[in-house]
Amino acid sequence: MKVILIKQAVQNDKMKLLLWVYLLLSALNLQAQDREVALPNQKQLDYQQAELGVVFHYDLHVFDTTKYSQGVNRLTPVVDYNIFNPTQLDVEQWVITAKQAGVKFAILTATHETGFALFQSDFNPYSLKALKWEEGKGDLVRDFVDACRKHGLKPGIYLGIRWNSFFGVHDFVVDGTGEMQKRRQKYYNKMVEGMLTEICTNYGPLFMLWFDGGAGNPKNGTPDVLPIVQKYQPNALFYHNDQLAEMRWAGSESGTVGYPNWSTFPFNFTGSGESAPPMIAKDNFALLKHGDMMGKYWVPTMADSPLRGYNGRHEWFWEPNDEQHIFPLKNLIDMYYKSVGRNSTLILGLTPDNRGLMPNSDVVRLKEFGDEIKKRFESPIASTSGKVPVLELKLKKKQLLNQIVLQENIKKGHSVKKFHIEINENKQWKTVHAGTSIGHKYIHLFEKPLESNKIRVVVDESFNEPDFKLFSAYYIKK
Amino acid sequence: MKVILIKQAVQNDKMKLLLWVYLLLSALNLQAQDREVALPNQKQLDYQQAELGVVFHYDLHVFDTTKYSQGVNRLTPVVDYNIFNPTQLDVEQWVITAKQAGVKFAILTATHETGFALFQSDFNPYSLKALKWEEGKGDLVRDFVDACRKHGLKPGIYLGIRWNSFFGVHDFVVDGTGEMQKRRQKYYNKMVEGMLTEICTNYGPLFMLWFDGGAGNPKNGTPDVLPIVQKYQPNALFYHNDQLAEMRWAGSESGTVGYPNWSTFPFNFTGSGESAPPMIAKDNFALLKHGDMMGKYWVPTMADSPLRGYNGRHEWFWEPNDEQHIFPLKNLIDMYYKSVGRNSTLILGLTPDNRGLMPNSDVVRLKEFGDEIKKRFESPIASTSGKVPVLELKLKKKQLLNQIVLQENIKKGHSVKKFHIEINENKQWKTVHAGTSIGHKYIHLFEKPLESNKIRVVVDESFNEPDFKLFSAYYIKK
Repeated sequence: MKVILIKQAVQNDKMKLLLWVYLLLSALNLQAQDREVALPNQKQLDYQQAELGVVFHYDLHVFDTTKYSQGVNRLTPVVDYNIFNPTQLDVEQWVITAKQAGVKFAILTATHETGFALFQSDFNPYSLKALKWEEGKGDLVRDFVDACRKHGLKPGIYLGIRWNSFFGVHDFVVDGTGEMQKRRQKYYNKMVEGMLTEICTNYGPLFMLWFDGGAGNPKNGTPDVLPIVQKYQPNALFYHNDQLAEMRWAGSESGTVGYPNWSTFPFNFTGSGESAPPMIAKDNFALLKHGDMMGKYWVPTMADSPLRGYNGRHEWFWEPNDEQHIFPLKNLIDMYYKSVGRNSTLILGLTPDNRGLMPNSDVVRLKEFGDEIKKRFESPIASTSGKVPVLELKLKKKQLLNQIVLQENIKKGHSVKKFHIEINENKQWKTVHAGTSIGHKYIHLFEKPLESNKIRVVVDESFNEPDFKLFSAYYIKK
Repeated sequence: MKVILIKQAVQNDKMKLLLWVYLLLSALNLQAQDREVALPNQKQLDYQQAELGVVFHYDLHVFDTTKYSQGVNRLTPVVDYNIFNPTQLDVEQWVITAKQAGVKFAILTATHETGFALFQSDFNPYSLKALKWEEGKGDLVRDFVDACRKHGLKPGIYLGIRWNSFFGVHDFVVDGTGEMQKRRQKYYNKMVEGMLTEICTNYGPLFMLWFDGGAGNPKNGTPDVLPIVQKYQPNALFYHNDQLAEMRWAGSESGTVGYPNWSTFPFNFTGSGESAPPMIAKDNFALLKHGDMMGKYWVPTMADSPLRGYNGRHEWFWEPNDEQHIFPLKNLIDMYYKSVGRNSTLILGLTPDNRGLMPNSDVVRLKEFGDEIKKRFESPIASTSGKVPVLELKLKKKQLLNQIVLQENIKKGHSVKKFHIEINENKQWKTVHAGTSIGHKYIHLFEKPLESNKIRVVVDESFNEPDFKLFSAYYIKK
C-alpha cells in the first residue's frame, strides 16, 4: 500500500470534505492499488508525447487510372509495374507538408498489399529495382528517412506482409496446394524476414515498425518478425503481431477513440481488425476503443484516418479528382479533440500523387490544420502542475475561458480514475464538467464560455497519488 | 501423277532390270505420290542444314552448393538469389567453345524452371535486375546474342514458361485457389507474353524460340505465344506449343534418334514429353523417334543430350565434381552418327560454371569432338550428286572405303523411301547396305572396310524423282 500524500494546504471546509471523501475512496481502492501498475516503456512515452503523426501511403496503383478497390487489389497483380513513374518526386515536400500539420513523426508504406517494395531489396525482386524509373536505383525509404531527419521528424516504416497480390499471399497464407504451397510459404517468410532485416539495418534508427493487419504469429506459420525488430531496432515501437502490440489500433479508421480511453489493456497483444479474437472484436471493437482501466498491459491507442475520407470516400491512396474528399478543417479539428484530446495519438493518412508530390489541396488543408491547432493551444490563460488530488488554477482576474487541458505524468501510468472540474463562481465551487480517463492528455472544449478567476480539477478516484504534469485553461475565440 | 524421268543412261541389263523394277514400284505408289508433299519451310531447312547446335543452361542453382533435383527445383524458390554471381563471366568463351565443337547455332535458357530471367525484363521482376551482380544491369541474353553474332553462330532463345517455382507455376498452372488463382494466372500469362515480346524485339533476329516442355495451348489458359513469335520473329523456328511445332523432340535425351527417322509427321504439333497425347507418347515416344513416312507435316527432329550425361548422371546444369560425367569422345561420336547421321539435328546441352566460364574439361572434350568430326568428314574419297534413282560414284582407283554420306535435297521433302548401297566387285554389283529414310543426311560407317573402284546408291522406292544433293564415300582410319 502506498501512502497518499496531500501536499496542498487545505483551505476551507469544502476542501476538507473533498479530501476526506478522496481518502475514503482511495482506501476502498487499496486492492486496485496493489495491482502491478501497467507502465509505458520509453518508446510508448515517445509515441504518446508525439501526439500527431502521418502515414504516407504510396504504391503501384497510385499510377493506374482505375478507382482503388482493396478487394480487387489484394487479388490482382498490376500487370505493368512500370506505371510507377513519379516524375516530380520530392519526398522533402511530403515531409515539410506533414511538418506543417504539426506532426512529430511520419511513416511510409515500404510495402503495402501489392507486395511491391519501395526500396532496394535483395530479398524481394518485386521492388524499385525492377523499374525503369531511376534506372532501378530508386529508394523511397532512403529518401524518406533522410527527409524526415533533415526536417526533424522521426521516421517509421510500415510493412504490409499480410497480403501480396504478386506473390499470391492472402491473409499471411501463400495461396496454393501441397508441397509447392509449403515451400513457397517458407520462401515467402524468408523474404519477409529478409526485407525486415534490410529495413531495420540499412536506414538508421526508426521510430516505429508498423505491420499493418499485424504480422500474425510464427507459431501459425507466419514470418518471425519480432526477434528481428528487437535485435536491430530495440527503440522502435513494435506494432504488431500476435505476440506483442506496443500500441493498439483504436477500433475504427475515423481518427477518433472512445471515451474513456485507457492506455491500459488486458492483453499485450490485440489481434488485428479482421482477425481480432472475439473478446477484442466484440461490440465493434469496444475494447480497442476504450481500453481497460484495470488492464495489466500498457498499450496506448492509435486513432487513424485518411485525410481523404470525407463525403462518401475513405481513400488511403491518391486518385485524381478526390480533392472534394479531403476532410474540411472543422472535421480534422474534431478528430483532434476526439483523439489527442482523449489520450490517443492521431495518425493521418496522406498519399502523394502520381507526380510524386503531396497535392496542393492536401498541403493547404494540412497547413490550415497545423495553424489552427497551434492557435488553439499555444496561449493558455494559465497553467499549473502538481501531485495533488485537487489542483487549482488561479487566473489573474475573472475572465472568460472555454477550454482546459489536463496531462498526467504517464511515466507512472494512469493514476486518475475519475475526476471533475469546478469553477469558482461567487466564492462557491461549481462543477462544470466530469470525466474518467486522463492519461497523456485530456482536452475539453466547453460549448459555452465560463467566467471565473479560479478553476480546479478534483480527483474523485485514483489508483495512486495523482501527478498532474499540466493543467491549463484557455479562451478560444471561435 | 508426276512423270519419273530417268536421265542417266541405262548401261547394262542389270541396270535395265533395276529401272523396270523401280518404275513398277513407283507406279504402285501413285496414290502416295498424289499426297500433298510435306515440305520444309526455310527455317526448317536452315535448322536441318545446321546439323549441330548447343543449348546453354544457366540458372540460379548453378550457384548453390546442392545437387540439382528437378523435382525439388520446380517447387522450391531459391531464397538468396544473389548467389548468382559469375565473377569471371565471359560469354564469348562459351560461344568459342561451342564453335570449336563445330556447331552452327547456340541457344540460351533465358528462363528455366526457377522462373529467373537472365535478361533485363520489364515484365518479370525476378530477373538480373534484382541482383547485386553488375548492379542489376547484367543482361546475359544481350551478351549471348552479341557473342554469337561476333563469332558467326546463330543465336536462339529458350524460354521455360511451364514451371516457375518463384511465382508458383506448375505445369503452366499458377498454383492457387479461387479468384486469386484466376487473377494471378492472367497476370502470369501477361508476364510471359511480355517477356517473349522483349526477347523477340530487343535482341535482333533469332534462329529459334524454344519453349521447353512446350507452351501449352492458349485455349486451355496458357500464354498466347505463337502470334508474338510470328509477328516479331517470323524467321525463328518455333518450338513449340500445342498449336505448332516446327521441329520435334526425338523422344529421348540420349542425343540420338531412331531409324528410320522421317522428318514427316502426322500432326503439326507434338505435345511434349510429359503431356504428349497418347498417340505420340505410346511405345516410349516411338512416333517422335521415327516420324511417319506418310506424315502430312514437316517436323524435323532434335536429338538432345547434356554433355555431362555419362556414367550415371544426366546433368543439364553445372555442379562441381561432375567432370567424370562428361561423355567420352567415342560416345559423342556415336551420338553424332545416330543423330546427324540419321537426318536429325543434334543439340548438346552445355552449362557454364559458377565462375561464368565453360569448364576446361568440357572445353577440351568439345574441341576433341569438333576436331574428330571435321577429320572424319572433311576429306571424302569422292562425291557426286544427281536426280536419279541409281547414282554411281566412281573412284579414281580401287581402294578401301568404310563410310558413306547421302543427302537428299529436302527442299522437295523426302523423296526416297527405300534404298540400298552396292559396290562393284569383280564387275559385279553387290549389296553391302540397305536403308529407308535419308532426308537431309544419312551417314553409314561400315564395320569393316570395303574395297572397290565404284559404289552406287540404288533407290528401291520413292515418292518422287530422287534428288541427291550429295553422295560421298570416305575411308576413315580408326
